[in-house]
Amino acid sequence: MPRVSQDHLDARRRQILDGSRSCFARFGYEGATVRRLEEATGLSRGAIFHHFRDKESLFLALAEDDAHRMAEVVAEQGLVQVMRDLLSSPRPPREAEHPADWLGTRLEVSRRLRTDPEFRARWAERSQQLTQATRERLARQREAGKLRDDVDIDVLTSFLELVLEGLVSHLAMGLPADDLEPVLDLVEETVRRHRRGS
Amino acid sequence: MPRVSQDHLDARRRQILDGSRSCFARFGYEGATVRRLEEATGLSRGAIFHHFRDKESLFLALAEDDAHRMAEVVAEQGLVQVMRDLLSSPRPPREAEHPADWLGTRLEVSRRLRTDPEFRARWAERSQQLTQATRERLARQREAGKLRDDVDIDVLTSFLELVLEGLVSHLAMGLPADDLEPVLDLVEETVRRHRRGS
Repeated sequence: MPRVSQDHLDARRRQILDGSRSCFARFGYEGATVRRLEEATGLSRGAIFHHFRDKESLFLALAEDDAHRMAEVVAEQGLVQVMRDLLSSPRPPREAEHPADWLGTRLEVSRRLRTDPEFRARWAERSQQLTQATRERLARQREAGKLRDDVDIDVLTSFLELVLEGLVSHLAMGLPADDLEPVLDLVEETVRRHRRGS
Repeated sequence: MPRVSQDHLDARRRQILDGSRSCFARFGYEGATVRRLEEATGLSRGAIFHHFRDKESLFLALAEDDAHRMAEVVAEQGLVQVMRDLLSSPRPPREAEHPADWLGTRLEVSRRLRTDPEFRARWAERSQQLTQATRERLARQREAGKLRDDVDIDVLTSFLELVLEGLVSHLAMGLPADDLEPVLDLVEETVRRHRRGS
């Protein structure tokens, strides 16, 4: 029997992650049954759980994968760009058109953080990635003279994360989001520019 | 048989709302059984459902009552003060110490908005109250020269509401909130002062 190459394993893993992402986004964690995961990935349960120990591990890997990609966007373009991407992504409960939709996973993460203390503990270490990327980006922006310098970087980071969480929650509640672009402009400006009192 | 006075009816209604508020905050909507509502209010189910048609109506009345009181704080002190009050209120899952705790109800409203389209429809009209109070407060602040005048009041209102929602979500996820005071200072300052580009 030929040895399975690492490339093949990586590709298979990617196939499972991308397929299950839309499945979780569409049906939620509980609703994403093994049968639906099979359909969404085009693979058997045997193949899926060869790569991931169980559904929980698959979901965590997915959330981690998304956090990693969000951190990459943050490093390049900042956390406000992540928010703009969320605004332009398809809304639940409408079915996701892009398989690479972050919002669905992010919503599930938020929901499970609220309701599942065990998940909260497992997620805690992974969630540092986005905070760290945001902090580093802001530090670089400050060095380049693009950031206001009268507020601590940790405060600016927490501010941006709070707005992101509000946006996720807003979208999750199905509230209208058409008018949020100028709000994000305001958020970006708050972090960026210097200001003087009136 | 003596006629029950309006004062008596109002007092009884208030007793039910205050008792059930801590019950919903502690056990969540589903967990707040009729038996627990009886214990929390000190009244029989007959007395409770004489004043409110069913549990759903009781919860909506409670959420409306809280929204009304939040709107009063907004009118006097602004939406950021509502956020500061949330920060200093007892956190779930710790048991609420004050019966007049807003956070519990607010969390339940957010959760049900996410998961229950029927509730979303019933809540929509009531939620306008807080938005309206915020908008009016900002308009008065602008007239008094205390508000930045380069951003539309609707954008500032949406901005504050987004941060509020982020804060509720943050607290609901049990994340640390000790360091959020300076973030709220930044939010307040963003709305208040004029600013010039760097």
